[in-house]
Amino acid sequence: MKISGRNKIKGKVVNVINGIVTSEVEIDAGNGIRIVGVITKSSVDDMNINVGDEITALIKASSVMFIKD
Amino acid sequence: MKISGRNKIKGKVVNVINGIVTSEVEIDAGNGIRIVGVITKSSVDDMNINVGDEITALIKASSVMFIKD
Amino acid sequence: MKISGRNKIKGKVVNVINGIVTSEVEIDAGNGIRIVGVITKSSVDDMNINVGDEITALIKASSVMFIKD
Amino acid sequence: MKISGRNKIKGKVVNVINGIVTSEVEIDAGNGIRIVGVITKSSVDDMNINVGDEITALIKASSVMFIKD
Amino acid sequence: MKISGRNKIKGKVVNVINGIVTSEVEIDAGNGIRIVGVITKSSVDDMNINVGDEITALIKASSVMFIKD
Amino acid sequence: MKISGRNKIKGKVVNVINGIVTSEVEIDAGNGIRIVGVITKSSVDDMNINVGDEITALIKASSVMFIKD
Repeated sequence: MKISGRNKIKGKVVNVINGIVTSEVEIDAGNGIRIVGVITKSSVDDMNINVGDEITALIKASSVMFIKD
Repeated sequence: MKISGRNKIKGKVVNVINGIVTSEVEIDAGNGIRIVGVITKSSVDDMNINVGDEITALIKASSVMFIKD
Repeated sequence: MKISGRNKIKGKVVNVINGIVTSEVEIDAGNGIRIVGVITKSSVDDMNINVGDEITALIKASSVMFIKD
Repeated sequence: MKISGRNKIKGKVVNVINGIVTSEVEIDAGNGIRIVGVITKSSVDDMNINVGDEITALIKASSVMFIKD
Repeated sequence: MKISGRNKIKGKVVNVINGIVTSEVEIDAGNGIRIVGVITKSSVDDMNINVGDEITALIKASSVMFIKD
Repeated sequence: MKISGRNKIKGKVVNVINGIVTSEVEIDAGNGIRIVGVITKSSVDDMNINVGDEITALIKASSVMFIKD
């Protein structure tokens, strides 16, 4: 199975904040890199996402901006 | 200066593909992590983004999905 | 494997327009429903997406707006 | 009136979950296709979206990823 | 007709750059505010968008980040 | 410092609605233009965003749709 989203970053769930409709999920991808995502609460429940799980952040290339100092 | 986007990942530009309206920019963030973004060609020109530059990928939390095996 | 994106719509590829950086892919999901996506040209090549293929559109809930007449 | 978003999918509202800032709205587009969107609670109130309403999901092509098995 | 996207900004088209798949459209909303959008080339053709037209930028609230100095 | 996001609109914060995970922030950019964004509650706290602050909305060009009457 292949997904067109170009950015797939593995990490360990270090934090989950559940709201009513959305949840914030944070993963530690190592090397000082953390990824925070906001997904629906239903997905967190359906996927049974908990702190300590190994999951993959999926990010479409068109969602990425760049900053140059 | 603070930006609300929760994901800021530094890396070295390893590839730039220029189209007419958009450009694909890829950075190496180390530890096997690469980030690919599609921004406007005008931004690549205006920011003078070239291979070898140190830049930062900026990604809104609401753009991040998760995959769990 | 589960993906947090809430909208997964299967369909047959009916059109592909390749640009330099991006490609437009259109699928027919039946019942008069067509889905058009713009992904990177690299993904079209890597996934070898061609007219006639059965693929699935993946859309994050936070990307969906609604119109009410 | 024309909107540049390439994906417009009609359906009947089958579920609304209201949070404080956001609301999840689900429509049944027929043929087994459901679309879930997260919009602001203010929009749900302003548009008076209720279960049973006929509304249209609007999705930008650049928000669509594809999966190929 | 109501659209859930919270940001609707009217302006005059001041520039259109056409690529193969995407086009960049810029509007002048007055008061020094310009909005640049990237939509599909097909939409520009279908909507017959030309310099001088009065059109409205539509932006979902979840796509907006904030910067504070 | 330069950011690739093409739309940067300054304004005064006129409203903040805090949820559990997300917050809605509205700015008045003058000339009748208001911008509403949904960011994470953590960002509102971290950036100490309050009514009356001068902040800048940052919007990627690929997030902008257009409507033509």
